[in-house]
Amino acid sequence: MNHKTPPVESDEERLARAALTYLAEPGDPALGALLGICDPAEILAAIRADMLPGTGPGCGDSAASRAALGRALGRWRSRLPRLPDAESIAGACHDGIRLICPGDAEWPGPLDQLGQARPYALWLRGPADLRLASSRSASMVGSRAATGYGEHVAGEIAADLAEQGWVIISGGAYGIDAAAHRGALAAEGITIAVLACGVDYPYPAGHADLFAAIAAQGLVISEWPPGCHPARMRFLVRNRAIAALACGTVIVEAGERSGALNTARHAADLGRPLMAVPGPVTSAQSAGCHRIIREWAATCVTRAADIIEMLSPMGVTDALSPAGATAWSPPPGSGPPASVDGAPSSDDLDADSARVLGAVPARGGAGTSTIALDAGVDLDTVLRCLGRLAGYGFIERGNRGWRLRKH
Amino acid sequence: MNHKTPPVESDEERLARAALTYLAEPGDPALGALLGICDPAEILAAIRADMLPGTGPGCGDSAASRAALGRALGRWRSRLPRLPDAESIAGACHDGIRLICPGDAEWPGPLDQLGQARPYALWLRGPADLRLASSRSASMVGSRAATGYGEHVAGEIAADLAEQGWVIISGGAYGIDAAAHRGALAAEGITIAVLACGVDYPYPAGHADLFAAIAAQGLVISEWPPGCHPARMRFLVRNRAIAALACGTVIVEAGERSGALNTARHAADLGRPLMAVPGPVTSAQSAGCHRIIREWAATCVTRAADIIEMLSPMGVTDALSPAGATAWSPPPGSGPPASVDGAPSSDDLDADSARVLGAVPARGGAGTSTIALDAGVDLDTVLRCLGRLAGYGFIERGNRGWRLRKH
Repeated sequence: MNHKTPPVESDEERLARAALTYLAEPGDPALGALLGICDPAEILAAIRADMLPGTGPGCGDSAASRAALGRALGRWRSRLPRLPDAESIAGACHDGIRLICPGDAEWPGPLDQLGQARPYALWLRGPADLRLASSRSASMVGSRAATGYGEHVAGEIAADLAEQGWVIISGGAYGIDAAAHRGALAAEGITIAVLACGVDYPYPAGHADLFAAIAAQGLVISEWPPGCHPARMRFLVRNRAIAALACGTVIVEAGERSGALNTARHAADLGRPLMAVPGPVTSAQSAGCHRIIREWAATCVTRAADIIEMLSPMGVTDALSPAGATAWSPPPGSGPPASVDGAPSSDDLDADSARVLGAVPARGGAGTSTIALDAGVDLDTVLRCLGRLAGYGFIERGNRGWRLRKH
Repeated sequence: MNHKTPPVESDEERLARAALTYLAEPGDPALGALLGICDPAEILAAIRADMLPGTGPGCGDSAASRAALGRALGRWRSRLPRLPDAESIAGACHDGIRLICPGDAEWPGPLDQLGQARPYALWLRGPADLRLASSRSASMVGSRAATGYGEHVAGEIAADLAEQGWVIISGGAYGIDAAAHRGALAAEGITIAVLACGVDYPYPAGHADLFAAIAAQGLVISEWPPGCHPARMRFLVRNRAIAALACGTVIVEAGERSGALNTARHAADLGRPLMAVPGPVTSAQSAGCHRIIREWAATCVTRAADIIEMLSPMGVTDALSPAGATAWSPPPGSGPPASVDGAPSSDDLDADSARVLGAVPARGGAGTSTIALDAGVDLDTVLRCLGRLAGYGFIERGNRGWRLRKH
């Protein structure tokens, strides 16, 4: 199932992937199939030349699939006039925006489980390391028209998870998404907003400040290039990335037709733990949660501890995978650095992280700036390292600040 | 597993069973074992004579079990001074109180699934037929310290179930139990209160009027004889009968230590569908419901339709039995009269019920008194027959009154 992950690509290949995010919608099956057998630069050249790229097994061998590829080529070519030149694309990586590609150290291996629907590349804004952050993460999504109850519960659970070193992934929308992000931020945790537009495009506009706060210590990420505006279908395509990035997905309030149920379906399809928070049966905003619980697609969770239990490896493999679904295990080499017995080892840490880890007390707790002073690193570095160390499970945030996590 | 069900017993045997309800606590394993191999009158005579009754396979063959039987004999004999004489026991059946024994036409076959813990006999108050009423029934139980939310939801769901001809069984306690009974009464449905004291003993005292209303159209029943007071342990023993009588059990609000979870455990042990209604995760009164849903012991239900789906034979056998549990199917001969293909047939109805059925319109609806006039029967008879016909699934109560049920 896993898409072939080439070694780190050349600058030319990276530039080609960046260009492809301008030309094709994410999840385009024709481009996904092509990327499985051709280099990105080769595909980009073929689009410019209006020539079908060289074919091979599984790609365009039948008349029907060649016709589909021809139509796709037309779609991609129609956007060529809007494609910035190479210099501008490279220049898009400014103001803290960066591009990561499959094979990069920061590329999250679990995304490869999407197969041909894997993102071509990802645009990132913020200091956190996406691969490390997502390695210990939960997606929390739900209704935009959330109730006070739903927002309260999402915020509380997200804060509890963040305090225990879990990263909260959500979609940046009004309602439950925003409450989840804010809960994580309130606990000074790392949160990731996965947008359906450019990472510099404030949508919804009322969330410009929220995205700035997320990007200050976590990540705002997107499959669409900077400047790209959102569109209705893009939210649905985006949802598969929310589900694929996280170890599991939690639905907090979803009406019967909520888009959150689309994310839930992706999580279930990927065999990742799917959880839902119940609510009053008199509330239409909980009807979708209750339905997926009733149909035993989702596990009923009521607090952070339930979610952590579901996401612990024992839970995933022993009891909680739906019958017939394959329990997700990350492809070899995609996880955090591991010692012989599989647990992360501090020997594998980079120098900054090792220095920061040395400054975190075993008891009590210490604030971010104290740790920065003790470790002799700047504040940006300490923030990034603390997130990485929490992601590995070395440290956790208690009531009195960061401390070593007991094993 | 099923206890041997003798044919209808003689008056002497019935009187002996009645006497045993005075002498032994329900669920006494020694008496349950004895009743499997000895006649009730024989056991009663042995208690009076202070002689161990004749032994046989499975009963008192080992020294240990003979010692246990000797201790039980002492317990039962200690109550002999309080045992009314035969005339008084027979006289206890006054004011509409009656006794039913295993083998009686009104004895509910599903109770036999309790094996040696089967009730020795049951005391009944009210006009409904226990076997027919329980053949299409749901137990609904929950916290005494219920919230307004819980009472509202229990009442609404119970009324919806009753309107569709389902009988509501509960324990007559404050909180959820009372709301369930009242919901059924409000819909002019049949409801059954299973007490942990005599059917003439108003406990809790504040529910005297409620029990009178239940006994007016449904049933108040007990394993304990008239005049018997409640005791703490009796509620737990009573719970197994609530679970065993109904086709399935619904928990509406239960704290982590609620007695309702004891009833839930009995329902699960019997392999009957177990359901729970969720609530706000911020409410301690829903914590028990959420736990049994999370542990997949109970199915999440939010409305009457969910419950009916669970209790329909298709639901029970196809999808909803927990793995490893045996789907409950009533022992042969314990259900309502059935035609060749298993569905109840109007040919099997008694004369009164057939006359009442003939007076129920196919469309629209008719009130109880209109049907009584059309059928030419008195109001008590029509009430009893309508309950029976609804229990069989022939008729249902719509917004405009009783009407034939479409098949």
